[in-house]
Amino acid sequence: MYRYPRALEKLIHKLTQIPGIGRKTAQRIAFHVISMDEKKVKEIADAFLKARKNTRTCSICHNLSESDPCDICASKDRDSTKLCVVEKPIDVAAIESTGVFNGKYHVLGGVISAMDGVGAEDLNISDLGDRIKREGIKEVIIALNPTHEGEITAHYLISLLSNYKINITRIGIGLPIGGSLEYTDFVTIAEAIRSRKKIK
Amino acid sequence: MYRYPRALEKLIHKLTQIPGIGRKTAQRIAFHVISMDEKKVKEIADAFLKARKNTRTCSICHNLSESDPCDICASKDRDSTKLCVVEKPIDVAAIESTGVFNGKYHVLGGVISAMDGVGAEDLNISDLGDRIKREGIKEVIIALNPTHEGEITAHYLISLLSNYKINITRIGIGLPIGGSLEYTDFVTIAEAIRSRKKIK
Repeated sequence: MYRYPRALEKLIHKLTQIPGIGRKTAQRIAFHVISMDEKKVKEIADAFLKARKNTRTCSICHNLSESDPCDICASKDRDSTKLCVVEKPIDVAAIESTGVFNGKYHVLGGVISAMDGVGAEDLNISDLGDRIKREGIKEVIIALNPTHEGEITAHYLISLLSNYKINITRIGIGLPIGGSLEYTDFVTIAEAIRSRKKIK
Repeated sequence: MYRYPRALEKLIHKLTQIPGIGRKTAQRIAFHVISMDEKKVKEIADAFLKARKNTRTCSICHNLSESDPCDICASKDRDSTKLCVVEKPIDVAAIESTGVFNGKYHVLGGVISAMDGVGAEDLNISDLGDRIKREGIKEVIIALNPTHEGEITAHYLISLLSNYKINITRIGIGLPIGGSLEYTDFVTIAEAIRSRKKIK
């Protein structure tokens, strides 16, 4: 079987081991790399090493950070009575990009999943109660993804937090802006109808 | 604006500079990398450097190679009377994977494109005539992609090679296996009808 030069094939192979990177994407990266200045390739290699080395986890909210505690946890300008619970660091970035939330975060590090063998004890859940007491939190906003596992985890959290004197809220489910009923799955449509708002 | 930790942001930025890698893919790679063993990350970084360093271009066919001449050009088992002209090294891999071609290759390194400012002089065209004479080539198979630029380049090659006593052929255009008329663009359908074959 025909193969690319060994070093090129090896880079493609290494890249395809990253979840979500298929062979086509890996090839595209590898082919571009061999046409680049050697200096630029060195910069990419360094960026990999430094990203791994200099990124840590905040011991309070478990978000990715350069410092511990992270900037958001350390900030005096954020409303510490509101705590938004998300699955992953990427979700923090998504919510921050909207600019509508000025509270703090708690990153679970995943969701409960029998299929993947992830239980509540594998997630950053046990310190949630402590944070509520210590930080004077009045509202926990559950912002998990609307998936089967997200639902299960949400229900687990709701029952766990039901004894605290706080409000528990969840982000809205429905049609996305620009979406259409025609191309939306029926589970979403059902949820959008259930969570309809009174206008008048 | 919220940012990921600097080193992570830098890796994402570096990756998005690679054509065809969007921010989502770059994030996926970066987030995976920071969760990996430091040793594994080192392996990826090394793979980048080595791919750049150890991949060269064959001075005969201009395909990517570890050696010069490349294995295909150096092979005694290949039919050197047939020369397949392609745009890029990735096209050689695609044709080799079929196993139906046992001739040699010539990689142009692109196609003529007024839009991108690529002229015939920017491609590996000038040595094509020499190869035909020196290697005793009897058939040149033009296997450029069926795009506007591919057509222009094909016509340029055909007029350039018309004085040589060789056959010039082109790969077939038509519906892909498993395709359907319903979902095929009309230009392809028109070409498929024009290039129909007599069965009986």
